[in-house]
Amino acid sequence: MQALPGFRDFFPEECARRNYIFARWREVARRYGFVEYDGPVLEPIDLYRKKSGGELVGQLFEFIDKGERHVALRPEMTPTLARMVAARARDFRKPIKWFSIAQFFRYEKQQRGRLREFYQLNADIFGDDSPGADAEMISLAIDMLRSFGFTAEDFVVRVSDRRAWNSFLAENRIETEAAGEFLQVIDKLDPNDSAATEQKLAAFGVSAAKLNEFLNTANQTWFEPLRHELDLRGLAKFTEFDLRIVRGLAYYTGLVFEIFDRSGKLRALAGGGRYDNLIEHLSDGATSISALGFAMGDVVLGELLTEHTTASESMEKWIRAQNEIDIYIVIAKEDRRADALRLGQQLRDAGWRVDYPLGAAKVGKQFQSAGHLNARVAVVVGEEWPDVNVKALATGEQRPIAHAEVTSHLATLLQP
Amino acid sequence: MQALPGFRDFFPEECARRNYIFARWREVARRYGFVEYDGPVLEPIDLYRKKSGGELVGQLFEFIDKGERHVALRPEMTPTLARMVAARARDFRKPIKWFSIAQFFRYEKQQRGRLREFYQLNADIFGDDSPGADAEMISLAIDMLRSFGFTAEDFVVRVSDRRAWNSFLAENRIETEAAGEFLQVIDKLDPNDSAATEQKLAAFGVSAAKLNEFLNTANQTWFEPLRHELDLRGLAKFTEFDLRIVRGLAYYTGLVFEIFDRSGKLRALAGGGRYDNLIEHLSDGATSISALGFAMGDVVLGELLTEHTTASESMEKWIRAQNEIDIYIVIAKEDRRADALRLGQQLRDAGWRVDYPLGAAKVGKQFQSAGHLNARVAVVVGEEWPDVNVKALATGEQRPIAHAEVTSHLATLLQP
Repeated sequence: MQALPGFRDFFPEECARRNYIFARWREVARRYGFVEYDGPVLEPIDLYRKKSGGELVGQLFEFIDKGERHVALRPEMTPTLARMVAARARDFRKPIKWFSIAQFFRYEKQQRGRLREFYQLNADIFGDDSPGADAEMISLAIDMLRSFGFTAEDFVVRVSDRRAWNSFLAENRIETEAAGEFLQVIDKLDPNDSAATEQKLAAFGVSAAKLNEFLNTANQTWFEPLRHELDLRGLAKFTEFDLRIVRGLAYYTGLVFEIFDRSGKLRALAGGGRYDNLIEHLSDGATSISALGFAMGDVVLGELLTEHTTASESMEKWIRAQNEIDIYIVIAKEDRRADALRLGQQLRDAGWRVDYPLGAAKVGKQFQSAGHLNARVAVVVGEEWPDVNVKALATGEQRPIAHAEVTSHLATLLQP
Repeated sequence: MQALPGFRDFFPEECARRNYIFARWREVARRYGFVEYDGPVLEPIDLYRKKSGGELVGQLFEFIDKGERHVALRPEMTPTLARMVAARARDFRKPIKWFSIAQFFRYEKQQRGRLREFYQLNADIFGDDSPGADAEMISLAIDMLRSFGFTAEDFVVRVSDRRAWNSFLAENRIETEAAGEFLQVIDKLDPNDSAATEQKLAAFGVSAAKLNEFLNTANQTWFEPLRHELDLRGLAKFTEFDLRIVRGLAYYTGLVFEIFDRSGKLRALAGGGRYDNLIEHLSDGATSISALGFAMGDVVLGELLTEHTTASESMEKWIRAQNEIDIYIVIAKEDRRADALRLGQQLRDAGWRVDYPLGAAKVGKQFQSAGHLNARVAVVVGEEWPDVNVKALATGEQRPIAHAEVTSHLATLLQP
């Protein structure tokens, strides 16, 4: 019997890698003053029908529960988050800066970087529509990736903005209803086929020359304040500003960004933007609050981590520290087991990670276990009891220690 | 729109409480040398049909997925864990000591201490059938609860053992097939109705006198080694040994224990035991390995925590530390925003938790924000730039600091 296709068993090594990603996400989110929340894994399907795009709704793990409710495993966090914020927006001081680390489910065709379950960091700011919030959000995404050891050579943030397009649409008298269609045309323009481009644009009463003029000017002017703020944080080198990027523009109301590996081999590492109208829409007008956020998944990030020498070394180092124990108690004389157990309990109570043989075992095998468990110190309980021998396993140095000195000696040896 | 009945929204406060429980579980599991794993939230339903009891199978969130697979949200960890261990038992040195913190789903009637989703710590030892493993497992469960601040006045571990009953069954020539039925009778005996007791036992050819003789003797002798080992760890006071407790005995093959609050008001806090035959059964004989474990849920534990003065104080203290920030940058002159942002980025890069106003705001309001966010220090960027004013918010003490000294001064102020 196996796990379902697209679902992962997290054996200790994989679990530690997952937890490493979570730890970095959590640490950097907190550095930015974000506070953690979470929501249900299972939600009424209407929550997603109302917000998520058609594609996502088609990929839901959905069913009727025993109480005749049509429900779905969450495919993304935003609808749950929007529901929570809409319900209690007034209880929280603005800006609300929240993050979550949660698992999501989409019934998709499996391929590289795409499973049927995955984890995402979601970070969002509510109640602040200043340009400063846009810069803060992009900086957070960059600093998360930097915290893994990635540099501007490894990834790039591609930035666009719906508001620039809105001004273009207004100038060219393109109706709001046609905006989505127009942006889709922009998305699919073939730069090598100018005849087709002219023809497609003509349907909206726009010439290629006019479009290019807009893009050339707006790519410079529109992003100037954002570029400046990222620059003084030293983060501008991670970004590319290009209004040609329109993915997600139908949904977002302002800033839009996506993060890719520089090699371009992998799927997007993260994506997000400003969605000022969503809460109002989902709450049927009951709550109106500006919103801005992004999500970063664990699967593509995990691939990039594995391929990156220094980043994967940092990860492996963290994992070793995570799973190593402090002290292995070697019971050299089995009739001293009671004393060893009592000592073990004392050391655990003091907060150390302690292991020992659960049943009688040869001393050599016990030292093997100590090594296998990456113990830093072995405490040998044997003939010398109540004194013990303490061996630092990294150096091999072994010393007899008087009973009264054991705790303080270990504290010195085990200093971080 | 609301969360489904029995499902929780984790707003920041609830999320922090949940994470506090996770942090304690994780820390104590590691102190005992356990290593973390996890498995899929969704599994083929046959996995549960093969192992879980009839009651659990009736409570599954189950459905047919888009690939025509009959699947279920996990109601417990053991079947997944058994599948994983059966598949790779040979790859790991024994004893295998693993723990997980995961969410589970059961479609049950909601009541106090019972939701439709909950989290559980699961801790298991594989490949060691020594009595030492039994003691280690009970000690781990006790130390987890101790780590929250609970004492022997707050909870009790009730211990029984299937092996003692096996010897009784053999002595009294009760067939293996009738064992389950017999244990159910024991579970339901009314101590005040001796006539009914005699009658029920007679069906198995046993007298009440014989049963009582067994219980009186075995309760003393059977548990002597375990009691001794827990005693020298200082943990015997947390336990009660009583073979009359037979819940789960049909499933377990040796040790069985449950943990309850002393007041008896709440449902079980944790439960577990030895299940040496399960892996062999689930793997159709492919892998045979002894096993022992327990699970502790978050819902009942959370109730006990909230009610317990010192335990809840420790929790609230942890939560404050978790969500507080180190530094709030007050931008006293808006034309110094660029400098403030640059400083903020430096301080975050140094690992501090830093916040600041995303847009222009009055100084008084910024100090309010700093207080609301539990900032430890406010750094005021204003006219004196490149020098700043640093205010320790706990004491209110404020001092001008030269630019070159800012980092070292903050490091001193913010020492843990």
